[in-house]
Amino acid sequence: MEKKRLLTGDRPTGKLHLGHYVGSIQNRVKLQEQYDSYIFVADLHMLTTKPSKEAIDQISENARNIVLDYLACGIDPRKVTIYMQSALPEIYELNLLFEMMVTVPRLERLPSLKDMARDAHLNEMPFGLLGYPVLQSADILLPRAHVVPVGKDNEAHVELTREIARRFNHHYGEVFPVPDPIVGTATLVGTDGQGKMSKSLNNAILLSDDAKTVEKRVKGMFTDPNRVRADIPGKVEGNPVFMYHDIFNPDTAEVDDLKERYRKGTVGDVEVKEKLAKALNAFMEPMRERREKYESMTGYVDEVIYNGTMKMREIGRQTILDTRKAMGLTGAWNRISRKAEKYRKNQEKQKDTP
Amino acid sequence: MEKKRLLTGDRPTGKLHLGHYVGSIQNRVKLQEQYDSYIFVADLHMLTTKPSKEAIDQISENARNIVLDYLACGIDPRKVTIYMQSALPEIYELNLLFEMMVTVPRLERLPSLKDMARDAHLNEMPFGLLGYPVLQSADILLPRAHVVPVGKDNEAHVELTREIARRFNHHYGEVFPVPDPIVGTATLVGTDGQGKMSKSLNNAILLSDDAKTVEKRVKGMFTDPNRVRADIPGKVEGNPVFMYHDIFNPDTAEVDDLKERYRKGTVGDVEVKEKLAKALNAFMEPMRERREKYESMTGYVDEVIYNGTMKMREIGRQTILDTRKAMGLTGAWNRISRKAEKYRKNQEKQKDTP
Repeated sequence: MEKKRLLTGDRPTGKLHLGHYVGSIQNRVKLQEQYDSYIFVADLHMLTTKPSKEAIDQISENARNIVLDYLACGIDPRKVTIYMQSALPEIYELNLLFEMMVTVPRLERLPSLKDMARDAHLNEMPFGLLGYPVLQSADILLPRAHVVPVGKDNEAHVELTREIARRFNHHYGEVFPVPDPIVGTATLVGTDGQGKMSKSLNNAILLSDDAKTVEKRVKGMFTDPNRVRADIPGKVEGNPVFMYHDIFNPDTAEVDDLKERYRKGTVGDVEVKEKLAKALNAFMEPMRERREKYESMTGYVDEVIYNGTMKMREIGRQTILDTRKAMGLTGAWNRISRKAEKYRKNQEKQKDTP
Repeated sequence: MEKKRLLTGDRPTGKLHLGHYVGSIQNRVKLQEQYDSYIFVADLHMLTTKPSKEAIDQISENARNIVLDYLACGIDPRKVTIYMQSALPEIYELNLLFEMMVTVPRLERLPSLKDMARDAHLNEMPFGLLGYPVLQSADILLPRAHVVPVGKDNEAHVELTREIARRFNHHYGEVFPVPDPIVGTATLVGTDGQGKMSKSLNNAILLSDDAKTVEKRVKGMFTDPNRVRADIPGKVEGNPVFMYHDIFNPDTAEVDDLKERYRKGTVGDVEVKEKLAKALNAFMEPMRERREKYESMTGYVDEVIYNGTMKMREIGRQTILDTRKAMGLTGAWNRISRKAEKYRKNQEKQKDTP
């Protein structure tokens, strides 16, 4: 039996961090065994908020870094097709056809878009940004994905994709599966304990950070602000250092011991952090080994993207053929080109007749 | 010196009528001498208000009829490239890239769109319809047209196209000309004298109507409603029969004489109408001859569309190459595919090394 298809993607805006790992990459690594997986570099999505030449000039470098991050995390290019969104002519086509099947008020009701416009400091909503969930639907339905792992904030976009798939199938005939979201709720707090880990908030530990950098980052982490000396009892709950211990330190006995002593005021922040840095680096060591291996194979990451894109082009071509056929656009064009061919053949015949 | 390029198009929603001739086709016939002209069958525009399978199934037949109408009017396919919009993969691509360069409020300020939604009996604005002027900009800029003949109601869309061209050139480098509208103001009142000629109002004389039908249509035309008998002085101004005489009857002496007698009440409606029918049929006779000629050449119209589309594909491909190059998308992809190629070559070399 054929595996079901899974689709996800990331904007090529920079290197990935531990928050990405916890929130999605680790899930993708797990799911690649179960699903025929597709991950795309969402450079057209990037254009919806960052259409500048400078941002576009960073795409290839950022794409490489992200894909290297994937491989370092254990994404296996034999199981996952990794591709560049903008290099697929078919995505543009499916996007426009889907734009006819959604209303403006339906898109305006999505709260995520207003947040995105605000975060990008845009005074007026770009038309492309309002259409971003339509483009996302084209992304999902071009490889006819069955499942889409998303964060809570993108769940509504998959719901829109489901509507478009149903509407299309109803009006033109069955072409698309109605995809299911796999809603991931895991997030990682930043090193400052203030909010989600994010590069722009400067509270991130990158997947590509070396051991020294990780140590430095951990050393600078926020802990219990009331604990100005090591002998004051501290709070473990909501303390980012212990949240990280819970996620990344597999030695639960050590973590329990640290927590107990922290609550009693018999352990210093320094020790808790040193042990966290050690655990984190142990956790990241296999990533670093894979990264080093793939980095030493010059051009390998590019080859992964290139191969994936070529494979996806074939798949996209087939989906567009089926889409155009179902809508009747293929028929319209074929009727014209067939009659034109007949005309040319007749002309030839008449020329040959003495 | 190369001719400047001109672009126009029509939705494939049915046969054309005298109103189309007066409003645009006669102008296109004149302008084809001066400009390298492009006319497209706007089937994707049709989808913005009529995405039904039934409408799509009519596209090829309607396209054929419209193009036959063009040829009958004297459009010369050696001077004019006629093509199918939906058959150009590049139009979808340019459309999406342009969508990033326009804001939602900018589009919502266009009054034409609300009218179109209302006319199409749509309760909610389809996203594709709000994006219709963006698609139109892609239509105009794909062949890098310099001039765009439009009606008053579409002038604002050319203004948007000019903004997009300027914005693109400013941000990414000079790729597009900033096109000028040629605003046509000529319109033709319907046979009922109530408003613009329109098939849906059943007040149209089709370009493909035969002489008998034209006679019947003219016989049923509205005149001065106060003139219940031939000996009552009538009003010439605003009288559709005399408006048609002014446009289509080249015998100005006859028209002046009829007007004078009409004002005095010494001519019957029957005579005025018979003379109009005669003038109209004389006017349409060369159209009928051309139509008959092209209709007898089975498949010729299809060949015109096919050839034009193939030619336009080449042009579109070049424009997209230049667009992607200017934006930096080509560079992004080339950097990846070149490195991938190097990787493959190195792998080959290593295999060959004993």
